[in-house]
Order: sequence, then C-alpha cells, then structure tokens
Amino acid sequence: MPSPSSFSADACSTVLAAIRTRAPLVHNITNYVVMNNTANALLALGASPAMVHAVEEVEEFVALSQSLVINIGTLSRPWVAAMEKATDAANARHIPWVLDPVGAGATTLRTETAADLARQRPACIRGNASEILVLAGATGEKTKGVDSTRDSADALAPARQLALATGAVVAVTGPIDYVTDGRQTVALANGHPLMARVTGLGCTATALVGAALAVEKDRLVAVASGLSFLALAGEIAAERSPGPGSLQLHLLDALHQLDAETIAQRLKIGS
Amino acid sequence: MPSPSSFSADACSTVLAAIRTRAPLVHNITNYVVMNNTANALLALGASPAMVHAVEEVEEFVALSQSLVINIGTLSRPWVAAMEKATDAANARHIPWVLDPVGAGATTLRTETAADLARQRPACIRGNASEILVLAGATGEKTKGVDSTRDSADALAPARQLALATGAVVAVTGPIDYVTDGRQTVALANGHPLMARVTGLGCTATALVGAALAVEKDRLVAVASGLSFLALAGEIAAERSPGPGSLQLHLLDALHQLDAETIAQRLKIGS
Amino acid sequence: MPSPSSFSADACSTVLAAIRTRAPLVHNITNYVVMNNTANALLALGASPAMVHAVEEVEEFVALSQSLVINIGTLSRPWVAAMEKATDAANARHIPWVLDPVGAGATTLRTETAADLARQRPACIRGNASEILVLAGATGEKTKGVDSTRDSADALAPARQLALATGAVVAVTGPIDYVTDGRQTVALANGHPLMARVTGLGCTATALVGAALAVEKDRLVAVASGLSFLALAGEIAAERSPGPGSLQLHLLDALHQLDAETIAQRLKIGS
Repeated sequence: MPSPSSFSADACSTVLAAIRTRAPLVHNITNYVVMNNTANALLALGASPAMVHAVEEVEEFVALSQSLVINIGTLSRPWVAAMEKATDAANARHIPWVLDPVGAGATTLRTETAADLARQRPACIRGNASEILVLAGATGEKTKGVDSTRDSADALAPARQLALATGAVVAVTGPIDYVTDGRQTVALANGHPLMARVTGLGCTATALVGAALAVEKDRLVAVASGLSFLALAGEIAAERSPGPGSLQLHLLDALHQLDAETIAQRLKIGS
Repeated sequence: MPSPSSFSADACSTVLAAIRTRAPLVHNITNYVVMNNTANALLALGASPAMVHAVEEVEEFVALSQSLVINIGTLSRPWVAAMEKATDAANARHIPWVLDPVGAGATTLRTETAADLARQRPACIRGNASEILVLAGATGEKTKGVDSTRDSADALAPARQLALATGAVVAVTGPIDYVTDGRQTVALANGHPLMARVTGLGCTATALVGAALAVEKDRLVAVASGLSFLALAGEIAAERSPGPGSLQLHLLDALHQLDAETIAQRLKIGS
Repeated sequence: MPSPSSFSADACSTVLAAIRTRAPLVHNITNYVVMNNTANALLALGASPAMVHAVEEVEEFVALSQSLVINIGTLSRPWVAAMEKATDAANARHIPWVLDPVGAGATTLRTETAADLARQRPACIRGNASEILVLAGATGEKTKGVDSTRDSADALAPARQLALATGAVVAVTGPIDYVTDGRQTVALANGHPLMARVTGLGCTATALVGAALAVEKDRLVAVASGLSFLALAGEIAAERSPGPGSLQLHLLDALHQLDAETIAQRLKIGS
C-alpha cells in the first residue's frame, strides 16, 4: 500500500525513540474520566505527563512543557478560561498543542468551545467522525453523547476542509484512522473493535499525539505516529484479552514494550 | 426460592439483551473517584456512558439521554446546582433517574443534598444500609465515612417507608441486596466479600441500574437487574482473583461476557 | 544493616496489623489523577478511605476521621481553601495529617501553597527530591513538571532541615527512601524502577502513610511503615509484571496479601 506522505514504519519508530530518549513533559488539561489512563499511557510510552488546570498556573506550566493537550471531555467555565490561557501561552512560545473536541455537537457549550479552540491554531485536532463533521460545519450533525454515530470515511472530505481552514493537521479516528493536512492524507488500519468498549481510548490517542508533537516537527508524521502507537498497542492487547478490563491493562504493557520490530511487522498504512 | 415480584432470571436476561441492542446513552453526574470505572462498567455491559456536569449544558445533555445517574460522592456547590437542573430536566421529559446518596449522614451538606434530591422524584434510590437509614429519617444514624456500619437487613423496613414516601424504588445493598417499592420486595444473594475492597462498586451498581432503567419500564425489575449484573460479574471475578486489583479487571471482563445462561445458572433471588 | 531508629520489620508488621484491625477512616483531599488508585490502595491495605473536598463539609468530615491526607497534585483556589480548613480542623483535634507537595517548584501557585501548608504543622511531608529541595528553600530548584530531576540522597540534608523547621517527619522518596525527623534517619531500599512508569505511586505512598499515622503514635515508625507497604507491594508486583499496566493491578493484590512473613523476608532498612 503506497503512502502519500513521508509517514512510514521507520518514521514512526524514529518518533518513538525520540520520545523515549527525550521524555518530553506533556502538559494536559483534560477530562476527569481519563486523567489516570492518559497519564499512564504517556508514562508507558516514555513521556512525562502532568495534569495541571488552575487558571493561576497554566501559563507558567506551559512554559516548562514541550507540548500541550486540550481535551474538553468534562468541560466547565473555569476550565475553558484555563484552556484559553494555556493555548495562548503555547502559541506565544511555539509549543505545539493538540485539541480533542469531545462531544462537540452534543451541547451548545461543547460546540462553541470546540469551535473557539479550533480557531486558536492547534497543531492537531483529533476527533471521531461526528465531532469532526460538527467542527467542519456540517449542518445538523449530532453526536450520540460522546460516541460517534458516523464512519470515519464520512468525515474525510470535511476533515480536509477543516485542516485547510484552521492550519491544523486533522485526525478522524474510527476503524480506519485518517490524518490529513488538507493536501496529503494518511490512512491507518490498525486497532481492534474491542477498543471501543474501553472508555477514553480516543482521549489516549490524543495524548499520545501530544507526546509525538513534542519531539517531531513534521506534524503529519507526528500525528500519524501518535495514533499508530495506540492502535498497535490496542491491537496487541486485544489479542490477549477476553474483555475490556484486560484490554486496558495489556494496552499499557504493550505501549511499554512497543519497539521498531513490532511497528515494522504490524503497521498498516493505507486504507 | 419464590420471588414476590415479576423479577426472574429471564426478566434479567431480557433487560441485558435490551441494553446490548439499544445501547442507551446514560448521562452521569457522578464523583471523581469512580468516573472511569463506572464509564467502563457501562461500556462493558453494552450501554453508552457520558460524564457531563457543567451547569450550562446538563439540561441539553439530559434531553439526548435515555437515563440519568446522580451520585453525590465528591459533592460541591456548583455540582449540586447542576444536579438540580439535570433532575428537573429529566423529570420534565419523563427520563428515569437514579440517586446514589454517597455518605449521607456523614456531613450536613451530604445529608441535606441527598434528602433534597430524594424528594425530586427519582426512579430509584440506591445506597448502603447507613445511607438509606439516614434518608429514611432514622435519628442519630451515622455512616463511617462512605462505608456502611450496618447490615442491609437493618434498613429494610426504613427502605420500604422511604419508597412509599418518595415514590422511588429503593435498593439497599450489602451482602444481601434488597429492592423494594414499598409493597413488593426482592432479595438478591449474589456477590462476594472481596468486592468491598474495590472502591466504588456501589457507585457502579447505581450506574448499571441507570442503564437498566433506560430500557425497562418495570422499575422493580430494572433495579433488580442492574444490581444483579454487578453482583454476578463481581462474584465471577472474585473466583478468579487473588486480590482487589485483579477483581476490578475481571469484573469488567465478566460484565462484557455476561449472558443468559450464566444468569440462569447463578442468579439467587430470595434471601 | 543497623537501623538508627525503632523502625524494624516487626514494627512495620505491627502497624499493618493495627490498620487491618481498626480500619481507620482516612480523609483524602487529593488530586483527580490518583483518587481511584489511592482509594483502592487504602482499601487493599485494610483502611477505609474517603475523598471529600467541599469547603462546606471538610471540617465536619475531618472530625469523623483518624487521619487526613493533603495532596496538591491538581490544585485550584477552591481546593486550597478547603485544604486550609481541613488542616486547621485536624490540628484542633490532634488528628495527624500528611502533606504531599506535588510539583512544588514548578509554578508559583504550587510552591506557595506547599510552603503555606508545610507551616501548618503536618505530621509528615512526603515528596520527591526536587519537591523537598524546593520546600527546604534551595534557591533556584526546579522540578520537571511533577517528576523529580534529582536523587533522593541530594535532598537528605535539606530534608533534615525541613523536619527541624516544621516539626514534621520528612520523607524523600526515590530509589532509596529517606525518612527523617531531623535527628534520626531511616533509609529504605525496597521498590522497583518500573514503579516510576505508573502514575501516582508517590501519591499512593503518601496515602498509605496517612493510614499508618492513624494507628501509630511514633511518627517515624508510621511514615517508614507506610512507605514500606508501598515499596514492598510494588517490588512484588514488578516481579510478576511485563509492564506498568500489570504492575498497578498486582500492586493492589500484593497490598491485600502483604503479611508479617513477607515483611520480615524482604524489608531492607539502611542504605
């Protein structure tokens, strides 16, 4: 399967090695549900996570960090204020940040907050098909709570438009993940259906993209690498797991054990 | 053992099948400690959970949902305001909601908030014996933090009174679980003592009751089914577990694997 | 290896037995990331945890508790107010409390809050080397987010000064843990490097110290016991674990199974 970008198994392994060598500090302003899991996933991969949300300290903390993750999963007004301060500080210092517009389309607060943040120059926006369709302006698009009601392929053309409009690399995740900067597109075919039965693995994908952006300047490569780390680890974990409880455990072990050989053997680029 | 209601293994399996077919959206306003676990338990069972608490969006979100779970485990004033808005919206739309009065009796804030919410027409109130005794007005009843100091049987008569006074189906959980609408009572004898060494399994029971209420109109059957899903999965998990860490993992796997045959073989109705 | 205090394997086992017999209520005002894990660790050990943070109820709740854990990991202004009320109430009632100054040195808010709390007579302060160096006033000390950039031995002399200045027993954790009241010092050599790949095990150590302080008046013995419970369980868990996901699970099982024989066989006192 030909790849339309410079993303490859080798590129993915190079990003992984850089994360392990440099252990970038990844600042997360994320939701209560996934804080523990995403911190553990970042640690298992080799990054150094921190969860810091107070409006009084986010600017100072961003300045210490190599990337920033903004996730609106359990939104409230004080957190929106902190997110805005943090993204401004990141932009001022050229620190890459990634937006996860959890549940955009479900409520006015979510849709407006996600749209406002999308205009603040994120390096990447990662969502499911429903969320990306909402952000791209598809009229009447509704999510089912925080789960997508649409296939990722349905959101590919809108994702390209959103990428061109915002300057972000846009990732639409689902059975197939698409990563696009509006011109080039990478399709990724790893993962396993049981992953949808574990809460917050989309949020974990976003966090791992944050780690990749901290060490890799080619944003398309960074985003595709971050998604691939999760999809590969999830796929390996699912093969060992009778259910979603086991999958979460084996996923962290697999992230810890992930290496260039496994990436070369398993990575499926193209659709 | 004769059952004094229409609850049975068959009824329980019918509720499970309906959850898996319809994947109801269950809106949770719950505590920080258990958000991840209860989301995972709902996903493992087959429901679609969302954790949404901002006062600006709870009304909109309730309107998308098939049921609502209110849990006061890590209470604060802004969350109480959101709980009140959400329960009003649920009642206006005839969306069933369940109350978990965590720690009622421990502090004035908890006791008063739980009592206020209990008067707002929940479909179900689920607590341990101490919490139900407090809500039923037993003078001087004190919980030990968030753990019960009393047997569930001690709270059975007060539970019946509370059910008649509020219109809710009341569930008192412990080694034996009792479910009552004030007239009929179901006793459930599944579960395992090691479950008390895992945090938030009472909260998980409440969340699974929320999923059952979303698909089953007979509330006594729905509540007994929700409690049975957890007790059966916990019992199966405990048999495979040398300690509470393993139990949490196997519990999610067992919820995912639960089927009519297992329910028929294991369910113990009656005391 | 000679021990310079009354801490010993026997003393450690006595503290463990007291926790299991008395099941002390440990009140935690802690961070969102670790609430679930630390509650589970306290339950697995035999204590009764509660997570309660609302400014309206912390005084009442402290009065029910046998110890208090204050952890500033995900700090914000309303939580600082609750922490101050809770520590005042604890001091007024002679209830021991332990401070975890997570990320002190990373931001002004954290450094100032940690320093303020350290002056409020905690029974124990537990941090990594960077945090203790910051609290002891080392000029220009910077943490890397919430992870230490220094060896625990670097912080030993400052830890002694901090102990004398505050009256707290100070614990610096790392590959070797040091516990000092400023005069006597205990070094503890259990644990495993993989523990650093699981989020919040430092916070878990602090919570277990809280449980030990609830039952043991000799604070040096209590703090060394709490750290030893975690280090021993983590070491046992790591031997069974291919990665950090497995380690978290086996750690809870090992805390549940910990006994006097294992403590006697494995405990390494001295450096």
